[in-house]
Amino acid sequence: MLDDPDQSFVFFRQGILFLLSAPSGAGKTTLSGQLLGQVHDLHPSISYTTRPPRLGEVDGQDYHFISEEQFVRLRGAGAFAEWARVHDFLYGTARAPLDEALTSGHDLLLDIDVQGVSQLKTSYAASSVSIFVLPPSWGELERRLRGRGTDNDEVIARRLRRAREEARELVNYHYWVVNDQVERAVTILQGIITAERARVLRLRERTVV
Amino acid sequence: MLDDPDQSFVFFRQGILFLLSAPSGAGKTTLSGQLLGQVHDLHPSISYTTRPPRLGEVDGQDYHFISEEQFVRLRGAGAFAEWARVHDFLYGTARAPLDEALTSGHDLLLDIDVQGVSQLKTSYAASSVSIFVLPPSWGELERRLRGRGTDNDEVIARRLRRAREEARELVNYHYWVVNDQVERAVTILQGIITAERARVLRLRERTVV
Repeated sequence: MLDDPDQSFVFFRQGILFLLSAPSGAGKTTLSGQLLGQVHDLHPSISYTTRPPRLGEVDGQDYHFISEEQFVRLRGAGAFAEWARVHDFLYGTARAPLDEALTSGHDLLLDIDVQGVSQLKTSYAASSVSIFVLPPSWGELERRLRGRGTDNDEVIARRLRRAREEARELVNYHYWVVNDQVERAVTILQGIITAERARVLRLRERTVV
Repeated sequence: MLDDPDQSFVFFRQGILFLLSAPSGAGKTTLSGQLLGQVHDLHPSISYTTRPPRLGEVDGQDYHFISEEQFVRLRGAGAFAEWARVHDFLYGTARAPLDEALTSGHDLLLDIDVQGVSQLKTSYAASSVSIFVLPPSWGELERRLRGRGTDNDEVIARRLRRAREEARELVNYHYWVVNDQVERAVTILQGIITAERARVLRLRERTVV
């Protein structure tokens, strides 16, 4: 392709799975909402869950809401790239839309916890980019959790313990972003997406000189 | 460090060498000038050369201008991380300022050709990030070279042949950027710098959880 003088260089690349993890309270939902609104051709991955919809949640948009029986059947058929039980409910990410995005060169953003990332990396090592969002400090994370006014002391203490445990997994991630100011964190996340899209290793073989 | 609740997370990282290569006429000088002006804590690497200064060039700013005798002595002492003879003159990048930047956590931008990158990668594999800038097409590169009005047909033909040869090395680079619009290319380059600064593997061991 680089031999035709009047042909612009057009490079075809594989799609990328951006895996975004953060302790509860670090601001992941705000960040991913802004990214999906601002970055072109970045799409959310819709998880499956057996949890009943909350008020305002839309099936096929927030989650695919299914029964436990359906979930177990899909899981048995190997349909999930990762799954987990959280409290009393099952959550899973279907393989098919991930594979379709990768093949067609589109990028997905996955809100996903530390365990999910570790499962996804086994199937999608070369196609996934993992990002860990940190709060500015543990003290600030505690203030943010208290500021929500939704959790009691025991729940907050549990979330803080879990956050510290999860943060030990940072070393297994590709990127780290401290969410001290949303705008600054979004700029770094956009930079990561821009850069990963420009990596030579993602070019399909036939387009390489 | 992540155990002190009131301590903000402060991460110390190694410096990075950003190696920017491009065929003559692809706009590398414009791009690196804009990057150095816009990206905080990104500094130019000043090469050594035996070429005499051109009008307006300042010693220690554009190049370190030295004699061939001095160059050969430095080279013999292993002072250069890479060097090359281009036409009748010698050019080299000194090791000491690179090592100093890496240790102190500062980043350098190196304007460097394909051969220089391949030499630097042997010493600085983990600390260097290589970026290849492409023109929008070979036809456009030829138009840009002719538009300068400084080269005759023979020189232009030679530059175009060399550009195609160099572009075959793209596969050995980390990133590729098409310079179709300067502003767009600068945004991608800034994204690459932002992302590389946020890579977990650049964190110093003592700062990792």
